[in-house]
Amino acid sequence: MTDRKFSLGIDFGTESGRALLVDVATGEEVATEVYEYPHGVMDRELPDGTKLDPDWALQHPQDYLDTLRHTVLQKGGVKPEQVIGIGIDFTSCTMLPIDAQDRPLCFDPELQHRPHAWVKLWKHHAAEPEANKLKEVAEARGEDWLKYYGGKISSEWLVPKIMQILDEDPELYERADRFIEAGDWVVLQLTGQEKRSSCHAGYKAIWQKGVGYPSKEFFKALDPRLENLVEEKLRGEVVPIGQKAGGLTPEMAEMVGLLPGTPVAVSVIDAHVGVPATGVDGPGKMALIMGTSTCHMIVSDKKLPIEGISGVVEDGILPGFFGYEAGQAAVGDIFAWFVRNAVPPAYHDEAKRRGLDLHALLEEKAAALKPGQSGLLALDWWNGCRSTLIDYDLSGLLLGMTLTTTPEEIYRALIEATAFGTRVIVDAFVNGGVPVEEFYACGGLTKNRMLMQIYADVLGKEIKIARSDLAGALGAAMYGAVAAGKSAGGYDSIKEAIPHMAHLRDESFKPNAENQKIYDQLFAEYVKLYDHFGRGANDVMKVLRRLRAGA
Amino acid sequence: MTDRKFSLGIDFGTESGRALLVDVATGEEVATEVYEYPHGVMDRELPDGTKLDPDWALQHPQDYLDTLRHTVLQKGGVKPEQVIGIGIDFTSCTMLPIDAQDRPLCFDPELQHRPHAWVKLWKHHAAEPEANKLKEVAEARGEDWLKYYGGKISSEWLVPKIMQILDEDPELYERADRFIEAGDWVVLQLTGQEKRSSCHAGYKAIWQKGVGYPSKEFFKALDPRLENLVEEKLRGEVVPIGQKAGGLTPEMAEMVGLLPGTPVAVSVIDAHVGVPATGVDGPGKMALIMGTSTCHMIVSDKKLPIEGISGVVEDGILPGFFGYEAGQAAVGDIFAWFVRNAVPPAYHDEAKRRGLDLHALLEEKAAALKPGQSGLLALDWWNGCRSTLIDYDLSGLLLGMTLTTTPEEIYRALIEATAFGTRVIVDAFVNGGVPVEEFYACGGLTKNRMLMQIYADVLGKEIKIARSDLAGALGAAMYGAVAAGKSAGGYDSIKEAIPHMAHLRDESFKPNAENQKIYDQLFAEYVKLYDHFGRGANDVMKVLRRLRAGA
Repeated sequence: MTDRKFSLGIDFGTESGRALLVDVATGEEVATEVYEYPHGVMDRELPDGTKLDPDWALQHPQDYLDTLRHTVLQKGGVKPEQVIGIGIDFTSCTMLPIDAQDRPLCFDPELQHRPHAWVKLWKHHAAEPEANKLKEVAEARGEDWLKYYGGKISSEWLVPKIMQILDEDPELYERADRFIEAGDWVVLQLTGQEKRSSCHAGYKAIWQKGVGYPSKEFFKALDPRLENLVEEKLRGEVVPIGQKAGGLTPEMAEMVGLLPGTPVAVSVIDAHVGVPATGVDGPGKMALIMGTSTCHMIVSDKKLPIEGISGVVEDGILPGFFGYEAGQAAVGDIFAWFVRNAVPPAYHDEAKRRGLDLHALLEEKAAALKPGQSGLLALDWWNGCRSTLIDYDLSGLLLGMTLTTTPEEIYRALIEATAFGTRVIVDAFVNGGVPVEEFYACGGLTKNRMLMQIYADVLGKEIKIARSDLAGALGAAMYGAVAAGKSAGGYDSIKEAIPHMAHLRDESFKPNAENQKIYDQLFAEYVKLYDHFGRGANDVMKVLRRLRAGA
Repeated sequence: MTDRKFSLGIDFGTESGRALLVDVATGEEVATEVYEYPHGVMDRELPDGTKLDPDWALQHPQDYLDTLRHTVLQKGGVKPEQVIGIGIDFTSCTMLPIDAQDRPLCFDPELQHRPHAWVKLWKHHAAEPEANKLKEVAEARGEDWLKYYGGKISSEWLVPKIMQILDEDPELYERADRFIEAGDWVVLQLTGQEKRSSCHAGYKAIWQKGVGYPSKEFFKALDPRLENLVEEKLRGEVVPIGQKAGGLTPEMAEMVGLLPGTPVAVSVIDAHVGVPATGVDGPGKMALIMGTSTCHMIVSDKKLPIEGISGVVEDGILPGFFGYEAGQAAVGDIFAWFVRNAVPPAYHDEAKRRGLDLHALLEEKAAALKPGQSGLLALDWWNGCRSTLIDYDLSGLLLGMTLTTTPEEIYRALIEATAFGTRVIVDAFVNGGVPVEEFYACGGLTKNRMLMQIYADVLGKEIKIARSDLAGALGAAMYGAVAAGKSAGGYDSIKEAIPHMAHLRDESFKPNAENQKIYDQLFAEYVKLYDHFGRGANDVMKVLRRLRAGA
């Protein structure tokens, strides 16, 4: 044991942080720690009770620091000197304003009642007007980069979020010394070094390799006050992923129980870090990172504009390739909403009686249904449509209900809808010239065997599953091993790390031809609804949102 | 007390029978009794466990007999000789096959495992193919009566239900001596007289005053085996409502605790009997009978074909007028479905803790919302669309859901959808030449003050409410008083009975101009969805139903 080398990966998710200690040579996972964020997602009010508007989603940065405090990983008898590197991954764009001393503005008692002082979580959707304006200005100016972000900059991303702060709380905008991705901020806390990740910047901040951020002229056209945004408030070097950001500071080393100077990797987006952890090492293989939301990752030799995807970034997923990202803004989140809001007591009682998780009970009941048997069809837009419409003013739809419709039928229809949403995205890639031949999945939802079978049936392809239950943290640990480098017992590239550290489950999910036939028919209906409500023929979802905002 | 006269009304509903003893002179309600049917609605299986297909809805006739047994009304010190008449009302078309001794075929142990031997409840919707065929044949033959039933004979009605028996169990069809409305069958049990009600026959069996049932040729065109249906299996005189069917038999008199020979009125449909009970006595006044489903009743001097209504029948609602009926196949049923299937434990716990009914808790929470605030919109077709589309292959729709959508928001959206459905019906009457100037409501849903305010806001008119909580049973008792006649202390016509026996609540619901404006916008969106999914542009609901049937 004492001659083994380990890497620590910390995966900062939406509801919790998960730490994992991994054997660098074999990928064996020797210790894990999950820390549920005490403040979770703040979408109704601030800690002091200040109410939030609909579509807001904030976080508390103290939860990130406390995650680090809770990852003292001495389980399994691993000694601090055996840990050769640390990697972190983070949701994105999850951003915050900080002061000149790198402190979050929300830590200032004077500012803590102001919503814009807090961390805006990736799924904060209140910057839709700003995203629309950004798109208009970029189109009017013929900005070249627009086509590599699916033709629209999402309201989830950095610039619309900054624009919202400027629009709604200009004084706080002024007070902010910098705006920073939470992942980069945590690396800054760990190392004292401000290294902005090319992955975060490339996918979420319109930063392109060899080009940088959009021009001063573009930002000035958005708003004269934004002209010097990059120099003033986005200061800090953009560094490629796979690099070392710095070494652990003595204070942080003591807090996490490791040695000062332990190499820390540049932050990677939580979805992107899962790609090497599923073993995806080149073109044609799509990684599905399936959790509260789902990300669809694939690399190609070519840089192609694909309509409605989130972005194409050189070296953004695997070095040497153009990395493509698409996604669904809510997947597990929809099922969690359903379980929290729409399941009657009899089901809770049965689950408790049988010692089952409620999801497991619903999975068991829904698995007894055949495709089509529920009589239901849904559009999976509970959190808007990220790909391929990039429109967060869209909302959910469920149809086909009768007086005999059961909760498990609705649960299954919601799962099917998310599978159809993935199929729309896959079709967009294939039609745009990026072939998708194999599927590799990881993330919490891969534990739901019925769900995985439905995805295989809907996509008509086998899906292989990462062995690790914590693929995000494993991917982060892989980057930690790369930050350490070969000389320290790690690896010199992520490609070298993959065959040693990433493994698949023995079981995969293969499509059932009969189910596929029925799902083809349901998918055709899904696409009709998708186009009708998503492409302007009926804008009822936007009308409802306007009326809600007025109420 | 001893010189007062009383009438007994028995209202046979979907889930229970309700008996009411009413002072004939004042309308005072002196005693009530509710009997929940032990077998309720059988929509999953027969009592012996035989599974039923989707869309089936059966009942057990023993529940009707037991309702009579449980109406021994000696509360309040009323003596049998003070009860001058009995009236009953019944859901419709609720029909059963009986043998030559008037016994339901399902009482025969040899037949009780056959679904078609049982009572088909009004909301049995499995005869949709037969209803479609009937429509085609009637259109091809240019049958004159078709236009008075909104252009389509509902699958809920007598002939499609009989056709389904013939199609699926021809041997049982042969065994049936007659098919009869359950309301007429109960009157037959009480009196030994087979008097078929003109109200049931007119609205549900294509019987027209002065014309009778459709012709032999028509029935032969439907199916040669049906040629003699009327003479063979619908035998029995059709008698106008407001008449006496006969007197209580000695056995029945003993069972219900009244005198032999007590006059029993001809059966009336449960919705139609509510019209005089709300005080509606002439044209321009719409009665809304609001319960598990809602019926919309209005009378006119003219016989006009109104698209998509259930029927126009001379003397069918009030003597001397043409009675128009339209309806929504599920209203309270949708809310009941929601409460049973989609409300989480925290709400049940809060209701229990505060000693509230769950509907009352949801009403309280939903009442705190403004129109438009839920961000939701629904189509109220959980049980198909009776008026104006007469299409039971349609199903429910809910849209606008986000990750912060709450149960009370959905509850309110469902209520709003049923109000929009009523507005579509009102518009159809007005556009067809039947003016609707005032609204009078009765039924269980009128207790929900938020619901009534939403209806007033959506319709843009004041709604007055019947004082009685049991308007159905009250209306039945009014017909009982008419069966007794003036000479026995009752009345010679229903019009004479109204001012004495029917009363309104002091409180009415008046529209709020601000809410009305928002609901006008939501209604415009409702109509777009209604037309898109209901009139053929997108037939996804039918596709889903087909796939469900195939699964």
